[in-house]
Amino acid sequence: MKLLTFIKDGKTRVGALTDRGVADLTALGLPDNMNDIIAGGDAMKKRIGGALMDGKLAVLDFSALEFANITVPQKIVCVGLNYKSHAEETGGTAPKDIVFFSKFNDALTPAGKSVTLPPWQRCYDYEAELVVVIGKEAWNVPRESALDYVFGYTCGNDLSARDSQFLSGQWLAGKAFPGFGPAGPVIVTADSFDPDADNGVYCAVNGVQVQSGVTSDMIFSCAEIVSTASRFFRLGPGDLIFTGTPAGVILGKEKGSRVWLKPGDTVTVSIDGIGTLVTPLV
Amino acid sequence: MKLLTFIKDGKTRVGALTDRGVADLTALGLPDNMNDIIAGGDAMKKRIGGALMDGKLAVLDFSALEFANITVPQKIVCVGLNYKSHAEETGGTAPKDIVFFSKFNDALTPAGKSVTLPPWQRCYDYEAELVVVIGKEAWNVPRESALDYVFGYTCGNDLSARDSQFLSGQWLAGKAFPGFGPAGPVIVTADSFDPDADNGVYCAVNGVQVQSGVTSDMIFSCAEIVSTASRFFRLGPGDLIFTGTPAGVILGKEKGSRVWLKPGDTVTVSIDGIGTLVTPLV
Repeated sequence: MKLLTFIKDGKTRVGALTDRGVADLTALGLPDNMNDIIAGGDAMKKRIGGALMDGKLAVLDFSALEFANITVPQKIVCVGLNYKSHAEETGGTAPKDIVFFSKFNDALTPAGKSVTLPPWQRCYDYEAELVVVIGKEAWNVPRESALDYVFGYTCGNDLSARDSQFLSGQWLAGKAFPGFGPAGPVIVTADSFDPDADNGVYCAVNGVQVQSGVTSDMIFSCAEIVSTASRFFRLGPGDLIFTGTPAGVILGKEKGSRVWLKPGDTVTVSIDGIGTLVTPLV
Repeated sequence: MKLLTFIKDGKTRVGALTDRGVADLTALGLPDNMNDIIAGGDAMKKRIGGALMDGKLAVLDFSALEFANITVPQKIVCVGLNYKSHAEETGGTAPKDIVFFSKFNDALTPAGKSVTLPPWQRCYDYEAELVVVIGKEAWNVPRESALDYVFGYTCGNDLSARDSQFLSGQWLAGKAFPGFGPAGPVIVTADSFDPDADNGVYCAVNGVQVQSGVTSDMIFSCAEIVSTASRFFRLGPGDLIFTGTPAGVILGKEKGSRVWLKPGDTVTVSIDGIGTLVTPLV
């Protein structure tokens, strides 16, 4: 099942992406925000499934929608250096423990919405990432059952300013600008996506592909990430975990040949089986 | 002016600490939460000042209050290694750039409320800190006017688990457990506190003093911190900045002589001119 949030008449609504188009679930009496959909658990999924069975359901044009933030997260957790190829291109080796850092909640940006690059930084970079959407409170959960706490998966872009990321040893200053966590537009529910499979993760800048990897190459799997994260951070419904990026970022290129992102560029993140996240930079 | 939040009949209220006791500002028609007090700006401060002029004002016993979270922050920013003595005791040198990291918002804990130490970590440590309470939106503000964006100051304890803090290069996993940011109980408004003066910052464990420093020893002043932070993070009313801790943490002791915090301990942070923050550990 593919779910999304969009804006109509200034208000957020929830939709389901079907083969024919987007069904407006809110118009069918379902909640108007993803957090309430998530909180509804399996009963809510059944209700949605039932609503989608109606063959005469009116649908909206996906490409014409203005998307909203996929959830209202209380926490945005990020994982660094989770693909060997990326760890190596940035001059390091595969980490032995999961590298957790964070963005503030105002980093979250809907698909299609532009992100402002503050003019006082210079070294802007993309990071195409699979994003885990947490489904219920997860606190110290074992690896074996960790994926039971996942509602679904979406596309994310861990936008980064490399010049402020490495000012100190702590990356926060390069990761937590407002809007620097575009995600969406579609959440594929956990029953329809296997994060350990060879799902392609791609990034393109102005239509030119710059990253290509597969989620099966992650050093730490989604189950390991959710389980370990839940021992440090009390995760809740709607919280997001950016799971790291494959090779191909600008930082990984040789010093003379780095062309940083600039206003006017458009960054596109795609993941097989999920969808495509477009982010114009201004 | 010293302001605080407390709980009465299950609801949060705002009070002012006076020489005679705590005036219940909410009972006088003022807001019931600190964010609205902060948003009210100078006009709100005048209203409070006027209310406190009433010599017959009924007051509550400060020591009998159940405190609430001092604000509802959207961001909790922390500064690391901001006292030369602390940077040196942990094996480093004074940083050239401000070291920013963060806690999640559920780290905030009211004064007097107990904090749970997860049993799966071991190396729990205290960090007594001056905490800046942001008064209005601050985005790329110059150093010269940065303190205009400060509503006030309070006491904080940057509780840390050293064993998870240093698993990777990123400190988040040791800093962001639920409740690991006790702060309060009193906010002294910016007009009544000079962060650059020799204000003593103290920490005691079970009544034995373990830290003693002065805020004038900070490597980066509050004005520098607010200005620089506002270039990376869009700060808003009620947001908190923990400004770093002086020497004396457990991590700074020789390896054989470190006695980590444990359930049953009580940590007390005091700052001259502000007040005392008591945190029982369970």
